[in-house]
Amino acid sequence: MDLLKKVNSFIEEQHLLKKQDKVLVGFSGGADSLALLDVLRSLGYNCVAVHMNFQLRGEEALRDEDFVVDYCREHSIALYVERVDTKAYAKSKSVSIEMAARELRYDYFHKMLSMTGAARVAVGHHSDDSIETFFINLLRGSGIRGLKGISPLQGKVIRPLLCVDRQEILSWLKQRNLQYVTDSSNQETLYRRNKIRHQLIPLLQSIEPSASAAIVRSMQHLTAPASLYNKAIAEAMDRLKLNNSFGDTQDCFIQSSDFESYPEQYISLDISALEQEPLAADILFEWLSAYGFDFRSIEQIWVRRKGQSGRQYFSATHRLLLDRGRFLLNENKSPDNRLYPLEEGVFSWTEPVKLSLSLREANKELPRSASCACLDADKLKFPLLLRRPLPGDSFVPLGMKGRKLLSDYFCDRKKNLFQKESCWLLLSGQDIVWVLGERIDHRYRVTDSTKRVYCFSLSEAK
Amino acid sequence: MDLLKKVNSFIEEQHLLKKQDKVLVGFSGGADSLALLDVLRSLGYNCVAVHMNFQLRGEEALRDEDFVVDYCREHSIALYVERVDTKAYAKSKSVSIEMAARELRYDYFHKMLSMTGAARVAVGHHSDDSIETFFINLLRGSGIRGLKGISPLQGKVIRPLLCVDRQEILSWLKQRNLQYVTDSSNQETLYRRNKIRHQLIPLLQSIEPSASAAIVRSMQHLTAPASLYNKAIAEAMDRLKLNNSFGDTQDCFIQSSDFESYPEQYISLDISALEQEPLAADILFEWLSAYGFDFRSIEQIWVRRKGQSGRQYFSATHRLLLDRGRFLLNENKSPDNRLYPLEEGVFSWTEPVKLSLSLREANKELPRSASCACLDADKLKFPLLLRRPLPGDSFVPLGMKGRKLLSDYFCDRKKNLFQKESCWLLLSGQDIVWVLGERIDHRYRVTDSTKRVYCFSLSEAK
Repeated sequence: MDLLKKVNSFIEEQHLLKKQDKVLVGFSGGADSLALLDVLRSLGYNCVAVHMNFQLRGEEALRDEDFVVDYCREHSIALYVERVDTKAYAKSKSVSIEMAARELRYDYFHKMLSMTGAARVAVGHHSDDSIETFFINLLRGSGIRGLKGISPLQGKVIRPLLCVDRQEILSWLKQRNLQYVTDSSNQETLYRRNKIRHQLIPLLQSIEPSASAAIVRSMQHLTAPASLYNKAIAEAMDRLKLNNSFGDTQDCFIQSSDFESYPEQYISLDISALEQEPLAADILFEWLSAYGFDFRSIEQIWVRRKGQSGRQYFSATHRLLLDRGRFLLNENKSPDNRLYPLEEGVFSWTEPVKLSLSLREANKELPRSASCACLDADKLKFPLLLRRPLPGDSFVPLGMKGRKLLSDYFCDRKKNLFQKESCWLLLSGQDIVWVLGERIDHRYRVTDSTKRVYCFSLSEAK
Repeated sequence: MDLLKKVNSFIEEQHLLKKQDKVLVGFSGGADSLALLDVLRSLGYNCVAVHMNFQLRGEEALRDEDFVVDYCREHSIALYVERVDTKAYAKSKSVSIEMAARELRYDYFHKMLSMTGAARVAVGHHSDDSIETFFINLLRGSGIRGLKGISPLQGKVIRPLLCVDRQEILSWLKQRNLQYVTDSSNQETLYRRNKIRHQLIPLLQSIEPSASAAIVRSMQHLTAPASLYNKAIAEAMDRLKLNNSFGDTQDCFIQSSDFESYPEQYISLDISALEQEPLAADILFEWLSAYGFDFRSIEQIWVRRKGQSGRQYFSATHRLLLDRGRFLLNENKSPDNRLYPLEEGVFSWTEPVKLSLSLREANKELPRSASCACLDADKLKFPLLLRRPLPGDSFVPLGMKGRKLLSDYFCDRKKNLFQKESCWLLLSGQDIVWVLGERIDHRYRVTDSTKRVYCFSLSEAK
């Protein structure tokens, strides 16, 4: 009965549950979650089981679902079962299967928490899981976040079995004469975790018999430093305005007025402001690792921060541009390579930008604004085209005589690569007649001999 | 030449040395320190070699010394050699041989730094040493101090080879065709370190080929959290007045006036003040581990902090007493069990306490102070004795009728075990006639029938 006592004290010490709390229990049918459900019920908690079928293991997943249903029926445990199409979700969100399962699981948990009015949702992680995660992160060159172990309490998710190890759980199940299912993918796919489980931890135990307990203790000692560190980093990120989302406009291409048609946003970080922070390298590390940059790349980015403008670094989802003393971070979306024809006789478009057209007389006063282009109508050849810049693009900027490469034009105007990439070009035949929001082509300007004027106008954002 | 470049950049990045610095190099003759000396000289530093013979390995130590002398003569390197009696030092200081060697080494380094005017002393630790230390500490359940790796710069000690591993060092020596000596004790005695070196690290590399680099990176990421944490702990220790030395008087037995004769000191910590600190458990951990308490004991001390007064915990050098809501920490010295006779006709003593005696007339006014005892001279039987309390000691406190156990007396007076242990008793025959600094025995008081009075007086501290 040692395990019951242990878990009970752990729940109390860590304030995981109150005696009267209703608790959801994530129940896969495997040893850990079965033990969790059994232990929590033995301790007198009001448990509701929740089971997810991720539909990744065909027959085996159905077998597990049946097992869970039978077990709960036999023991009169309220049960909710959810089937999800994990593969479709992963595809639609462009994330790994593992990440998809994780997101689906926690979404479902949160939905069920509010539906059932349960206080917490309990999952079956134990100390060996925490140790394995420690080593996986250690071998990734992770920061303190990855080394401080799995938390017993994260939001509303609790892990009451973190105080015991796999062996104790298996003994408990044996003693209680409880059967469980095994996940065959565990054995095959999780190469790294299995090597840690079956080779590394036994080796550590041969060096020090109480290795597991010592490692758990070492990880616990990292909790306080981690929380001080996270606080310091968060404060520095606030100072540097490195809010970790692309929800807010940070530094739009067109700054004078926000156009709905220019949704391109990126986060911009002044490198010398960063360098003045006491934890500069760590801030960069935490900031970029949150966007999927690996630890080795971040080290390179830090070392080469004084290097040539224009260098780019990529994670799976984001890219970082070094641009004249600044780091610019943007989502790494595949560029829009389409051509959008503008047919004659149409006077308003919404795709890819919100644009309107009016025909005016040449002798009337014409609008003067970067968001408007007044062009000699008789020189334009419909259908016009809208497209993104391509390498080698050039035009004759208004007021100039010669052709200029678009990249040089942007460089002169101290615009960065992200801004160049996110701009739209209006073409007539092969000629760029307007760099939207920037400048028209000299050859298409309104002159004394112009008879009719086409005025293109970018609509302002609401 | 990759190693040279690596070390050079590392020295620059970490600000270990300036080009014109004179640097002492700890030179054992082994691979690491030989490579260090050779690399620093190749980089153009002005090196002075220092060698210590700890005289622990007999002939082999002499062989190493000869090797070092020959090498330095051949390469025209200034060399200082020091022979020390490590065993005698360890015995005199009651520390382990390992600790003794460490202390002797760093004492010698500091002496040589000031003697030679060198800026720094370099030692040959490399990244494998740091990783091995990481695992040793991990398996001890260590705090962040033990996990953040060996520092490249600590005071004036630098470790320029921390950026390379053992293999790179051996390749460098091979390429330079340099012979070195091997320390046979390395193979035999350092069981744990060797198991980590020869089994654990290769296993980790089989899981992740760049394991060593990743672990070094993980350790580096702990540097910033560690320094924030150390600062927070130091501030809390200041608030709690947990100065980590027994040099200052914290809470003397006799508080009214400081007597030279009572050098007993201990550190006292109010547990509820501790509990109000956000990092309470961590503060206790850091405080006690500095006094040699092991991590598991500290956990127990924390968990049982509300328990019964009187419980004691021991480290090799210190002991902690739980006493009515306080932790009391004292050195763990073997008690003084001697008997100190006070012969008749002597009027002043310095051992074990500073005490003086005067003979007075009973009808004169007598001093009234806890530091004085005025006793009926005719009842005393010389030689009197001074000794520490023993279990079962009792006396009749002045003003009372019955005998009282000394422990009850101290308990009633809210004195703790340390105070009881550190007090001295004056005995006449089997009777305790005075608890020094506290109270005399009722039976030996001055009464109307007293003719001669002996006044004992504790001398005040300067």
